[in-house]
Amino acid sequence: MAAHTFEPTLFYNRLGGAEPPALVLRSGDSIRTRTLDAHGTNEREEPVASRPNPLTGPFLVEEAEVGDTLAVRLEELKPNRSSCWSHRYLAENVVDPSFARRLPEQEYARWRIDPQSRRLSPVEPAVSGISLPLRPMLGCIGTAPADGQTLSSATAGSHGGNMDYPGIAEGATVYLPVFVPGARLYLGDGHATQGDGEIAGSGTEVSFDVRFTVTLLKGQASRWPRGENAEWLFTLGNARPLEQALQHATTEMVRWLEEEYALDPASIGLLLGQVVRYELGNVFDPAYTMACKVPKWSLPRP
Amino acid sequence: MAAHTFEPTLFYNRLGGAEPPALVLRSGDSIRTRTLDAHGTNEREEPVASRPNPLTGPFLVEEAEVGDTLAVRLEELKPNRSSCWSHRYLAENVVDPSFARRLPEQEYARWRIDPQSRRLSPVEPAVSGISLPLRPMLGCIGTAPADGQTLSSATAGSHGGNMDYPGIAEGATVYLPVFVPGARLYLGDGHATQGDGEIAGSGTEVSFDVRFTVTLLKGQASRWPRGENAEWLFTLGNARPLEQALQHATTEMVRWLEEEYALDPASIGLLLGQVVRYELGNVFDPAYTMACKVPKWSLPRP
Amino acid sequence: MAAHTFEPTLFYNRLGGAEPPALVLRSGDSIRTRTLDAHGTNEREEPVASRPNPLTGPFLVEEAEVGDTLAVRLEELKPNRSSCWSHRYLAENVVDPSFARRLPEQEYARWRIDPQSRRLSPVEPAVSGISLPLRPMLGCIGTAPADGQTLSSATAGSHGGNMDYPGIAEGATVYLPVFVPGARLYLGDGHATQGDGEIAGSGTEVSFDVRFTVTLLKGQASRWPRGENAEWLFTLGNARPLEQALQHATTEMVRWLEEEYALDPASIGLLLGQVVRYELGNVFDPAYTMACKVPKWSLPRP
Amino acid sequence: MAAHTFEPTLFYNRLGGAEPPALVLRSGDSIRTRTLDAHGTNEREEPVASRPNPLTGPFLVEEAEVGDTLAVRLEELKPNRSSCWSHRYLAENVVDPSFARRLPEQEYARWRIDPQSRRLSPVEPAVSGISLPLRPMLGCIGTAPADGQTLSSATAGSHGGNMDYPGIAEGATVYLPVFVPGARLYLGDGHATQGDGEIAGSGTEVSFDVRFTVTLLKGQASRWPRGENAEWLFTLGNARPLEQALQHATTEMVRWLEEEYALDPASIGLLLGQVVRYELGNVFDPAYTMACKVPKWSLPRP
Repeated sequence: MAAHTFEPTLFYNRLGGAEPPALVLRSGDSIRTRTLDAHGTNEREEPVASRPNPLTGPFLVEEAEVGDTLAVRLEELKPNRSSCWSHRYLAENVVDPSFARRLPEQEYARWRIDPQSRRLSPVEPAVSGISLPLRPMLGCIGTAPADGQTLSSATAGSHGGNMDYPGIAEGATVYLPVFVPGARLYLGDGHATQGDGEIAGSGTEVSFDVRFTVTLLKGQASRWPRGENAEWLFTLGNARPLEQALQHATTEMVRWLEEEYALDPASIGLLLGQVVRYELGNVFDPAYTMACKVPKWSLPRP
Repeated sequence: MAAHTFEPTLFYNRLGGAEPPALVLRSGDSIRTRTLDAHGTNEREEPVASRPNPLTGPFLVEEAEVGDTLAVRLEELKPNRSSCWSHRYLAENVVDPSFARRLPEQEYARWRIDPQSRRLSPVEPAVSGISLPLRPMLGCIGTAPADGQTLSSATAGSHGGNMDYPGIAEGATVYLPVFVPGARLYLGDGHATQGDGEIAGSGTEVSFDVRFTVTLLKGQASRWPRGENAEWLFTLGNARPLEQALQHATTEMVRWLEEEYALDPASIGLLLGQVVRYELGNVFDPAYTMACKVPKWSLPRP
Repeated sequence: MAAHTFEPTLFYNRLGGAEPPALVLRSGDSIRTRTLDAHGTNEREEPVASRPNPLTGPFLVEEAEVGDTLAVRLEELKPNRSSCWSHRYLAENVVDPSFARRLPEQEYARWRIDPQSRRLSPVEPAVSGISLPLRPMLGCIGTAPADGQTLSSATAGSHGGNMDYPGIAEGATVYLPVFVPGARLYLGDGHATQGDGEIAGSGTEVSFDVRFTVTLLKGQASRWPRGENAEWLFTLGNARPLEQALQHATTEMVRWLEEEYALDPASIGLLLGQVVRYELGNVFDPAYTMACKVPKWSLPRP
Repeated sequence: MAAHTFEPTLFYNRLGGAEPPALVLRSGDSIRTRTLDAHGTNEREEPVASRPNPLTGPFLVEEAEVGDTLAVRLEELKPNRSSCWSHRYLAENVVDPSFARRLPEQEYARWRIDPQSRRLSPVEPAVSGISLPLRPMLGCIGTAPADGQTLSSATAGSHGGNMDYPGIAEGATVYLPVFVPGARLYLGDGHATQGDGEIAGSGTEVSFDVRFTVTLLKGQASRWPRGENAEWLFTLGNARPLEQALQHATTEMVRWLEEEYALDPASIGLLLGQVVRYELGNVFDPAYTMACKVPKWSLPRP
């Protein structure tokens, strides 16, 4: 169980493919590394990679095979500079079509993080009074996709990818299906904070210092990303329309409760029907993201 | 500002129409009344009305005119019996179509509320270990619909209706558009608790004692239901697919922030993009419900 | 089997409700009448009713009961003036959201029908070269809705309504579910022609002379509108998103083939999978319309 | 302008990637080749490649660069054996969710083509009376996808792919965006016939003899597949839900009419609003396909 420090120099705008791994890991290894912001600028605000969402990785995990699951515990997600950027206006697709023409043409805005208060504010003479607590999250995390595909880091699928789900935060463990030998883990697109749905088309985009630990779950198959934190189990469906994302996430949660908690259909129906929560990842990118959440307090011991 | 006690004897499965009002109210009046469960049984579990969702009302508000908004402060929502019912299995439309055939044919289950612990559990020999805190909410609240329509209490629209949104709870104020003279307010379909989305097709259905106060906001137009509680502003969009419900709710929130908080498009984009939260009402009925929420702490003083 | 001539003086913007019938019919009766255009102007271009889609009716059919089906054979649908109007630009919801802001604000355009050539052209100095054959169709036909509802003539449901399906043309027979005693048939919203989807938000709107015959199919239940012409059977689903409209229409076609053609699931799968056609009604109004069509040549004798 | 005969030995389940080209073509070249059926069996019903949809290609077109369009004229599409297969039952996602459980578990059925009558019938003792004319079409045709992606031949995108659109038939010319140098054209998945929507999840699947000619349109950019035949222009949008596929297809048609027919927004609105037709490709695969069609007779000379 080694502890690696990895300084990335190559970044990828796609998940999948045959590029040489950034690093070969063993189950249990921990890694300290960095991620760029969504436009490819680093901790010194130097442009070092191209859009969209240049990712750090791929990390190869020894002995990972198709049908396994890769657990990634996110131990630290820390913005490593004080300057962020975001879009300034809402995206056209999140308001009524007849209202969309009232939205100004999209522009960028800058934000500044105050390291003392751990809050961020827009650097905009015309806008005052917005001050938000830091709530760092990774917009993009995933393995190589199924079916030998190579997919843009602008979209998401059963392998994860650009989900922009605020629950992918420090303290969470993300479980990703292994679709290719070695799993090939990628991550990036850090946000200092972000509302549900990423409805302006961006979070407050920033580069990150990241620390995480990988654990290989041999023979435990998953079909969609799963995760947990101190209070919740969650599953993630990525598709359009949101109904389909919800169906994928709910079905994956049902499988999880059947397989690891041995719940029968009646227990699942009675429990989920009364305690389930849903949260949005983005409703901006080619695939939308819906999280299905179950509070741990409500579950029988597994 | 009178305090009424109203014992309902007639219940309606539709919102709208020309039936005589249950009671004529003035702005500021408070009402104590009761609601039946979704199948029409009362506090003594007697069947007294027909399905679906028989509602108490309509309450006519004097001087309410088209273009006004009716505020309904929900001061008490209390299950008035210990026995609830729910569906037992997940609904077919919330799982992947290929998974749906694995769901058993729908059945009913019974639950019991323990008034001491304020928790409820299914009364099912085969299911153990499910114990949930009470979280009472009104599934159905609305005014007479727009365009002279009369709509079933099984569906929802810009007038409210069967939204099944857990945020419609004690302590919340719901703002409803006035589409006909007198507004004609209806309410019912109480749930002892309910998960997001009402994904089994029911909450834990029960009759309620209800206390609320109406206030007429003259000349303040709303296009979709709004609401607030101690911590949040929320707007509700009712439509399919969820994307359209989200568009309605988001557009209504933008209008609210423009009109009452005087925010410009950049402030709205910067703020909502980073702080908005979405929650599901039901994804079971003809129209789905999406809530768009903004935390009050994030807003400038109105 | 009487032949009525009915000169309407009252028009309705809703289907359903308790207004006195325009005329009481018996199964087998034929009716000559008129319909207004969608803005309520008559054959002399006089405004005689209000928007949207003022309808002629309701026609009560004696002995029609819940669970029957009403057949309406459309024997003549004839524009009764030479002047039509339409919208000038595409609707915002039929193009990519990012493209929608390029659309001009909606305006009206006028068209003229040349009775000799039976063609129509826009009366627009700036637009030349558009000349289209007449293809008259009824945008709106339906019975009183299910569940005691009263629904706007701007939308559609299982009772029919504002479907804007070009297949509702001279020579077609439309089969409508009977949801209330007497059925209460309404019709209107004639179009001189219209593209699929009504993607500019209107057809070429005009008043009509109409002749039709009603036949009551006792005890033959339908759940969604059906129809046929010389070459096709069709069913109509009205909902959003289009996937759901397609599901309703396809399910209704399966039921029709099971019930009246005695086809088993394999025959239905093999046949529909290889011969079905779909056509759009409108994708503009609150409910979208999808037609599921089967060519009569492909069917075994019923 | 060479005439090639190419006997494929390698087949690909993905579009994109870096495999060596099957053949290098010049603009104007014609090719005779073969395609396998969707399960990978050839003209002698030998299994020679794996699922799904193994494709013939990639054909590299000299001088093709990003921003060009590749025209592929389909001169011959001929089933080269008499045995086809299909699914036997409707897919679960094309009927109402509550009806889906009534569908039997999916199975395969065999069909036989009678070369004399050019008709095909299921080889099923229990099913009689189904006899359909041949209507051969290519289910899958596309170039390498945008953004360096490699996408499964089971799905579709702006590069084409598995669209299952019956209009991709003998006599049609398909226009595909060039997203990588050389374009990299793939094709396969022939159907002897297929209903709209591929609602059983398959056409009548068969191997093909194919002849086509490629023409490079330098500097003519397209964003989605386009096509034409003797009577129609069409554009193809691939996405979920169908509304988004329709938006992509409609927007691409608007661009085409603006760029090559010099129509202004009013002419486009007046024309498309009254003459457009839509047709479904599949509603079964990860991306659905909608075709937007304009009849050539309605257009001014380009």
